[in-house]
Amino acid sequence: MRTQRIADRAKKDAVIIANGGMPFLDPVFWYVTEQRSGSFEGSMAIIFRDGSLDVITGRLEETTARSGNGNVHVYERREERREILEGLLKGCRRIGISGGSVTYNFSEYIKNITNAKLFDVSKEIADVTAVKDDKEIAEIREACRISSRTARAIPDILQEGMTEKEAAWLIDSRMRADGGDGNAFETIAAFGPNAAEPHHRPSGRTLGRGDTALFDFGSRYGMYCSDLTRTVFLGRPDDILIRAYETVKRAQEAGMEKMRAGGRAKSADLAARKVIDGSEFRGRFIHSFGHGLGMNAHEGPSVSHLSKDVFKEGMIVTAEPGIYIPGVGGIRIEDTILITNDGAERLTDFDKEMTVI
Amino acid sequence: MRTQRIADRAKKDAVIIANGGMPFLDPVFWYVTEQRSGSFEGSMAIIFRDGSLDVITGRLEETTARSGNGNVHVYERREERREILEGLLKGCRRIGISGGSVTYNFSEYIKNITNAKLFDVSKEIADVTAVKDDKEIAEIREACRISSRTARAIPDILQEGMTEKEAAWLIDSRMRADGGDGNAFETIAAFGPNAAEPHHRPSGRTLGRGDTALFDFGSRYGMYCSDLTRTVFLGRPDDILIRAYETVKRAQEAGMEKMRAGGRAKSADLAARKVIDGSEFRGRFIHSFGHGLGMNAHEGPSVSHLSKDVFKEGMIVTAEPGIYIPGVGGIRIEDTILITNDGAERLTDFDKEMTVI
Repeated sequence: MRTQRIADRAKKDAVIIANGGMPFLDPVFWYVTEQRSGSFEGSMAIIFRDGSLDVITGRLEETTARSGNGNVHVYERREERREILEGLLKGCRRIGISGGSVTYNFSEYIKNITNAKLFDVSKEIADVTAVKDDKEIAEIREACRISSRTARAIPDILQEGMTEKEAAWLIDSRMRADGGDGNAFETIAAFGPNAAEPHHRPSGRTLGRGDTALFDFGSRYGMYCSDLTRTVFLGRPDDILIRAYETVKRAQEAGMEKMRAGGRAKSADLAARKVIDGSEFRGRFIHSFGHGLGMNAHEGPSVSHLSKDVFKEGMIVTAEPGIYIPGVGGIRIEDTILITNDGAERLTDFDKEMTVI
Repeated sequence: MRTQRIADRAKKDAVIIANGGMPFLDPVFWYVTEQRSGSFEGSMAIIFRDGSLDVITGRLEETTARSGNGNVHVYERREERREILEGLLKGCRRIGISGGSVTYNFSEYIKNITNAKLFDVSKEIADVTAVKDDKEIAEIREACRISSRTARAIPDILQEGMTEKEAAWLIDSRMRADGGDGNAFETIAAFGPNAAEPHHRPSGRTLGRGDTALFDFGSRYGMYCSDLTRTVFLGRPDDILIRAYETVKRAQEAGMEKMRAGGRAKSADLAARKVIDGSEFRGRFIHSFGHGLGMNAHEGPSVSHLSKDVFKEGMIVTAEPGIYIPGVGGIRIEDTILITNDGAERLTDFDKEMTVI
């Protein structure tokens, strides 16, 4: 059981998952309640040492809360929330909070209600949520299927003169039409030199001949994300971009070779980085090789050259090397990967060969 | 200047706006940098007492950062970020943080770097961001125009047998086709009894004769949100829902009467609540009359019966009374409102008469 795994790992009398106001909501609230709905601002999920779960929420979401796991406590006024929390935490001496997702103010609120000592257990929670169960993997597979189908259609979608915003809209619409529940994150559509910014937001820039066209997107299916990047060209690009594309492709393969249960996450980053830094593009791979994903578009494990994480069977991570040349363009190729004992299983699927439209 | 207004209000040597990992990003970072792009995980914006601004970010977003306001400092390794921050905060004795949006871990990080005393200045920041400048109002107007046009098209979109998910997708697609940059928040589409859950997420439930069909959605335009709710019916509903609709409509009008610069925000909630609690639907209005919005779908001022806020010219708030009847359905009517000295200006525009399709 999910709550039992968190309780066993955190080893505290209670672990509190607390939502602030939007957008400061902790996906772990939905992970433990197995809720499919609600926004649950100001709500809490409390996991006790024996794996039992209590949920504190406002009247606004009472109906929704009762459709999920846990004993539901409903408050109408702020003081009632405080009394419920005080009652539940009675006798708890060591309380875990998720320091990477709870707000400072909410941690102070908890501190003031209890005499217990607070501990940040975000690492322990991340260790649990990083390894996906079968139900989670099935949803991520479906999210990956949806975004892959759109990735394969990109050569048909693109037209000279269309804006980045228009292209992003077409991508998002196709994923929804294909059964997706929304975006995993805001779609990146970057043409020409804009592709040199890894996190570029779609603008009114139009697609011209010789432009790189980079698309980084993912569908959400249920509560789960997918993540992929496809880079194509409208007409033959500068030779430097062709060489960069081939280098990124080789780097992705080299990194993926190192992805298997038991291996060090940093070895994947280092293998890909070696390919790029051993080429004329030394120093142009300015981010990590990958990151975990699940209900969050970014979560554990870290797949950077500094990562201390070890791959485990059932982890879902990205493999996304890139080369960025300011003023010219950028190349990134990204798949969503399931870690198995045999190696990396690509859950996303589109043509990795250089595509000139 | 935005930074000067925050500095004057917070009255600290420095105010740090700190982004955690997605989704724990503080929109105020974009407010002060006037950035249009980037995700800026782990980045900070530091506002000094004289209104000057420094930005600390990773190499990944260096290009993007330089397109916004502020002196940009780029780090490659964590230790470099620490050194830059230490250098900038030298001599600061009183530092403000945004306690409602910074994570506990980031606040601890800042605490460990400096000897200064930390203060939560989220209320002071919210007071500044709640009053929109002309540039912001123009973007919100456009976001409202886009979502209103879709709201007016709802009677043409709906068909018997379509699912909530399909309806939500059609709404989202229309807003994008009309120039929207994405959703302000996940669209709520709730049919029949599902409409009794104020924050219902679209499901596979199909639309049947006599069903309530409630849609709560908004477009994002640039970085800004709009928010509206339209409730219609497929065929003649139960009489109780007709009476509920008329009551909600009257409640919205009563609340909006109280919306003008200088008035107490709670008076709008109380006026609307009086209408509903004075009817057969007493106790069925289970949330606040409204909330502020801007870059966040929810932000200050509070428009609840407990609010201590006072309306000011340039505030943008929602007016959204509702009646929820478990097992039967729910009614909500919502507009986005600009507060002026003369009263409430509706920025959203669709037919408020009961609509039976």
